[in-house]
Amino acid sequence: MGGNHFGTIFTVTTFGESHGPALGCVVDGCPAGIPLGIEVIRRELTRRRPGGGGPATSRVEGDEPEILSGVFEGKTLGTPIAIMVRNTNQRSGDYDALKDLYRPGHADWTWEATYGLRDHRGGGRSSGRETLGRVAAGAVAKAFLEEYGVIIHAWTSSVAGISVPGPEEPGFDLEEREKNPLRIPHQETATQVLQVIEQIRAEGDSAGGTVSCSVWGLPPGLGEPVFEKLDARLAAAMLSLGAAKGIEFGAGFAAASERGSSQNDCPAPAPSGTLRLPRGVPQVRYQSNHAGGMLGGISTGMPLTFRVAFKPVPSIAKPQQTMDRYGAVRELIIQGRHDLCMVPRAVPVVEAMTALVLADLMLLHQGARLMPGP
Amino acid sequence: MGGNHFGTIFTVTTFGESHGPALGCVVDGCPAGIPLGIEVIRRELTRRRPGGGGPATSRVEGDEPEILSGVFEGKTLGTPIAIMVRNTNQRSGDYDALKDLYRPGHADWTWEATYGLRDHRGGGRSSGRETLGRVAAGAVAKAFLEEYGVIIHAWTSSVAGISVPGPEEPGFDLEEREKNPLRIPHQETATQVLQVIEQIRAEGDSAGGTVSCSVWGLPPGLGEPVFEKLDARLAAAMLSLGAAKGIEFGAGFAAASERGSSQNDCPAPAPSGTLRLPRGVPQVRYQSNHAGGMLGGISTGMPLTFRVAFKPVPSIAKPQQTMDRYGAVRELIIQGRHDLCMVPRAVPVVEAMTALVLADLMLLHQGARLMPGP
Amino acid sequence: MGGNHFGTIFTVTTFGESHGPALGCVVDGCPAGIPLGIEVIRRELTRRRPGGGGPATSRVEGDEPEILSGVFEGKTLGTPIAIMVRNTNQRSGDYDALKDLYRPGHADWTWEATYGLRDHRGGGRSSGRETLGRVAAGAVAKAFLEEYGVIIHAWTSSVAGISVPGPEEPGFDLEEREKNPLRIPHQETATQVLQVIEQIRAEGDSAGGTVSCSVWGLPPGLGEPVFEKLDARLAAAMLSLGAAKGIEFGAGFAAASERGSSQNDCPAPAPSGTLRLPRGVPQVRYQSNHAGGMLGGISTGMPLTFRVAFKPVPSIAKPQQTMDRYGAVRELIIQGRHDLCMVPRAVPVVEAMTALVLADLMLLHQGARLMPGP
Amino acid sequence: MGGNHFGTIFTVTTFGESHGPALGCVVDGCPAGIPLGIEVIRRELTRRRPGGGGPATSRVEGDEPEILSGVFEGKTLGTPIAIMVRNTNQRSGDYDALKDLYRPGHADWTWEATYGLRDHRGGGRSSGRETLGRVAAGAVAKAFLEEYGVIIHAWTSSVAGISVPGPEEPGFDLEEREKNPLRIPHQETATQVLQVIEQIRAEGDSAGGTVSCSVWGLPPGLGEPVFEKLDARLAAAMLSLGAAKGIEFGAGFAAASERGSSQNDCPAPAPSGTLRLPRGVPQVRYQSNHAGGMLGGISTGMPLTFRVAFKPVPSIAKPQQTMDRYGAVRELIIQGRHDLCMVPRAVPVVEAMTALVLADLMLLHQGARLMPGP
Repeated sequence: MGGNHFGTIFTVTTFGESHGPALGCVVDGCPAGIPLGIEVIRRELTRRRPGGGGPATSRVEGDEPEILSGVFEGKTLGTPIAIMVRNTNQRSGDYDALKDLYRPGHADWTWEATYGLRDHRGGGRSSGRETLGRVAAGAVAKAFLEEYGVIIHAWTSSVAGISVPGPEEPGFDLEEREKNPLRIPHQETATQVLQVIEQIRAEGDSAGGTVSCSVWGLPPGLGEPVFEKLDARLAAAMLSLGAAKGIEFGAGFAAASERGSSQNDCPAPAPSGTLRLPRGVPQVRYQSNHAGGMLGGISTGMPLTFRVAFKPVPSIAKPQQTMDRYGAVRELIIQGRHDLCMVPRAVPVVEAMTALVLADLMLLHQGARLMPGP
Repeated sequence: MGGNHFGTIFTVTTFGESHGPALGCVVDGCPAGIPLGIEVIRRELTRRRPGGGGPATSRVEGDEPEILSGVFEGKTLGTPIAIMVRNTNQRSGDYDALKDLYRPGHADWTWEATYGLRDHRGGGRSSGRETLGRVAAGAVAKAFLEEYGVIIHAWTSSVAGISVPGPEEPGFDLEEREKNPLRIPHQETATQVLQVIEQIRAEGDSAGGTVSCSVWGLPPGLGEPVFEKLDARLAAAMLSLGAAKGIEFGAGFAAASERGSSQNDCPAPAPSGTLRLPRGVPQVRYQSNHAGGMLGGISTGMPLTFRVAFKPVPSIAKPQQTMDRYGAVRELIIQGRHDLCMVPRAVPVVEAMTALVLADLMLLHQGARLMPGP
Repeated sequence: MGGNHFGTIFTVTTFGESHGPALGCVVDGCPAGIPLGIEVIRRELTRRRPGGGGPATSRVEGDEPEILSGVFEGKTLGTPIAIMVRNTNQRSGDYDALKDLYRPGHADWTWEATYGLRDHRGGGRSSGRETLGRVAAGAVAKAFLEEYGVIIHAWTSSVAGISVPGPEEPGFDLEEREKNPLRIPHQETATQVLQVIEQIRAEGDSAGGTVSCSVWGLPPGLGEPVFEKLDARLAAAMLSLGAAKGIEFGAGFAAASERGSSQNDCPAPAPSGTLRLPRGVPQVRYQSNHAGGMLGGISTGMPLTFRVAFKPVPSIAKPQQTMDRYGAVRELIIQGRHDLCMVPRAVPVVEAMTALVLADLMLLHQGARLMPGP
Repeated sequence: MGGNHFGTIFTVTTFGESHGPALGCVVDGCPAGIPLGIEVIRRELTRRRPGGGGPATSRVEGDEPEILSGVFEGKTLGTPIAIMVRNTNQRSGDYDALKDLYRPGHADWTWEATYGLRDHRGGGRSSGRETLGRVAAGAVAKAFLEEYGVIIHAWTSSVAGISVPGPEEPGFDLEEREKNPLRIPHQETATQVLQVIEQIRAEGDSAGGTVSCSVWGLPPGLGEPVFEKLDARLAAAMLSLGAAKGIEFGAGFAAASERGSSQNDCPAPAPSGTLRLPRGVPQVRYQSNHAGGMLGGISTGMPLTFRVAFKPVPSIAKPQQTMDRYGAVRELIIQGRHDLCMVPRAVPVVEAMTALVLADLMLLHQGARLMPGP
């Protein structure tokens, strides 16, 4: 199993260590005939890169993708789409000091406890750089979903305890999100957070935060009952991200303190032709969306909404007490410039994983509900 | 796919509608030679039943399990273990009034939007009664885990906004948990919550809450990298529960507001022989457990901790506006006695799903890390 | 994994030991709205039973199926369909003499080598009785395929070296097949084989044979490339039958001795509207069908044909030398009446497995090839 | 699903079209710590190449592999092992003449019937060149199996109806196999077949044949019951090869004409310590091996033996009648030099697929049978 494979019909396998020859993915199960060019993959990979300021690292990642298979004359063939990004500028020597140390908050020791050995250079496979393959695959899934009018947007919704106003509050602007390195869709808050970030940097510390995600245009009926519910699939996808510590859908944890009368989303008639439905099922628009676009784990046709919590980056400049491979206590001071908050870079990764889940459920839905036709 | 199948090696398939002939499960992949009797399954099913007071419904569910296969002379055979519970006392007629109505907050309309038809009697497959198959399967997984000293305990950690003190606070008592119908391991809080529950009942409303879960004795190294991380698996398992709206591990959402220096769990030397590890890997005990027992999605050997949010029960006595199959707006008043808060009954279900995830990961770990031996 | 689960979208899990409480299956992923009654399941189970004469055993198997879930008002719900058959007339004591012996040609020792223990009564899970769950599930798959005009017929095509004339030879009659206990669709050959069978019985020996299968009405395009080819799926399905020793498609092993010029199936134009195809793809009818209805592992729209070889029943009346659990050499004389040739009873099992493979590939095809539509 | 993914724990995903940028594979689930160098992969890829004479094509395939991930300091990391081979010397223009034609015996039309489009250059993904990824992955599986003393050898066992003497007949020599381009382990027969091949070439025709495979050193207990039997898995693996038309295990189709008394493999005591077995299970050596190394789909510890039939290469020099994309009848004369018999090149592919199946079952066995230990 290995754990590097995801999905049932629209699937992806990712590969690559932080400082190995290359990283990438193989997307298997993408339908044929979808327009796909290298530029859409490059665009998403660029969004994943450090932004050049604020909370970003100074590590330059060129990250030039190459499509190795599955595309012919600008369209997907229905065959596996392999995408590769070569690692460059690897300076493995930088990591020699860490070779025998277990960094706090990292997976260094747990990987050795699992495999008996590890690639210590930059975390190897447990590096955040692993998400590169996810983002490349997500770009393919997005291209597929675009054909059906499904639009996914994630954004930084809080950093270090500072909340960003939501889509229904004044000043929220998705275009602003792409303008600041924090991926915060609210100019004023972005300015405020940048100041806090600088202060945290001065302290040699790091910050966590949350990413919110909304999906528009999702048809109703997605999500398989019981174990493969829409939220179960998304939860697995998001908690598979290294630093994720929680997820909530719609009202989420707040719903647990509420009453049924305030949380129930009530169905109301909608104009005919709004949604594509089996014969005899009436059009519905819910009067509220506390549930975040799903009921019983199946999409309702309302916007899908969820929020993911990320812990602070564990690599901090402050001295920390840790131990080495030989069981001795050691003091660790991490050199070099690291991401101080990885939440902004998680934004395109959350979108990518969402796209992979939804593309798969779209195909499963189509496959699983083949009805006796005319 | 159907979505009713769970796991990779230690797997379960559940079946059954709320008012069909029977519900149950088939556990496939449980190793041979595990002691298993009907009484351990019956005990877990009993814990899942309404408690006989407080927030419970008056519906009497006998829920007598029968093992149909896979056990011989008191031990598992290594073959599929099928367990069945017949539905009795079904009074399907009770649901005739709801036949053409879509209940707010329920999956009634989304199921029809998916399948074109549904079993309207008590929610059919989307009923909470579906968890019966999960609990029976979880009892098998628990019996397996017990052989390895892995102990799982869940409890009600909040209801209607009232928090229950945690394991490190005074008055926390897991034995108390089994004494009150709320599954609250804290006598004083249980009394307080019961009063609030009565008030909510008087208002014709319902409540949500959270379930916390801890696992002791889990070996390090569980969880496959990247997509099959320990937390990803558990998140999928928990969000597959009908009313779950969120999950968080360790410090969870609170971690997102913290600094790296306060969240990093630092490794420290532990006495030899504490944990079973590959040759050459030193014994470790982390000095804190903010991460909730995992780093990089792999278990650390520290207690595993997480918390699940459940929305309020959508079936409330208050009148609600909804619509029917013919697209007409209708007022709905739900008759009969229903669970006012399903959180207490979710406690054994959370344990069952946890057991299923861990049993599977134990076997995967064993399988995936076969090392060249002596 | 356990190995008792089959399929990707249209899936089945089977359970049950020969002398345990019950056997059965859970079909998960069958679309909603398919008409399904207990009688179609009962009919297939009856075809699987000993025929009451000739090569049959005298063991009476009532095999009355019960649908436990997934069907409502005569139609499938889209939820798991659990079907159970209770074991009756079990006389486990008959097997006490075999408790410590390893029967030649059976899986007795290999199961112990795998699990460390086994249910010795009638072979336990390794008994041919295990196919009961397959046949029940296959009846559901057949009901689904019928909606699309896909028809599956298998028959005994040889016994003990005597070949049965094929569909294009005189005297071949599928109705005759249901009239004789040998499932031979050729009256004259049936008579001849019955005589040979009697002779083999007199010698205390047993016979093998082959089952041929043809499928009509299969649309082109079924079968996923590379590892999930139509023939790969069918081969796995057939070799999963206990006594199967080989499979061949179309011309099969004979093709290996031929030339390309004699084996190539050449495409020729067919009338429009014959087959449902993607836009722009011309209608084709192949001028021959040496390949057995597939090219590149994908169905061509021609009849699907294959043949499965079954070894002789290993339970024979002649004395055999074997050994016991304690490592001692023992002579074995198997008492009681056993199937002398299981090929006739394999006929409905081959049909069931074929139906399960095709139903799954129909849904996968639909799911995997969702095209941007109007 | 896509169909390009294989295995449960030790898995492989292959990618690449005949004339796209690259072909390759991602092996996921290979345990950590296995010695692996580029040279073992190169060696297997070289065995797959045309042999430079006799039945080979004149197409020069450099096929230089590159390991992109998963190996560190000469050992596997436990992370995905991606291997890539760039296509060179592609001369796609050679195929322009075939762009609108459906070649007889090829998957040209079935791919279009499935996907609506295809890469016509050399068959695209349906080309035999697709096996390159399998062979690279198989080299990894072989390296893993070698650690356990499992040895796999396949050979050409017949060509164009001429049978090659088997391992127990005089003149059989596995070293000879690597010396002649036909992979025939029998010098005299090789000479004879070469003459026949030349004659077939002169006629502008092509030949089929069979590959036999034996595995030594396989432990007993491999193969999951019911649907994932050892033979079921191998059958799926072999029939997933483009030109395969059948498979048989042990005595195979011949067994169907035999009696139980001649086919039963009888267990006999073996010296202690021969096989690694669960406690209390006696050592066994079967007195014969008609079943080909398995009983009930589980390995017996005897050599595993099977035989695969391949149809003649469909690309022949003789004129053939076919049709084009526009539905018109056309005459086809295939230009260029093609493999006249692909059986010799199938030999390393059969070994690779066998290795992938066995590596996976070794890990599954280990995972699925975790026993309560000391």
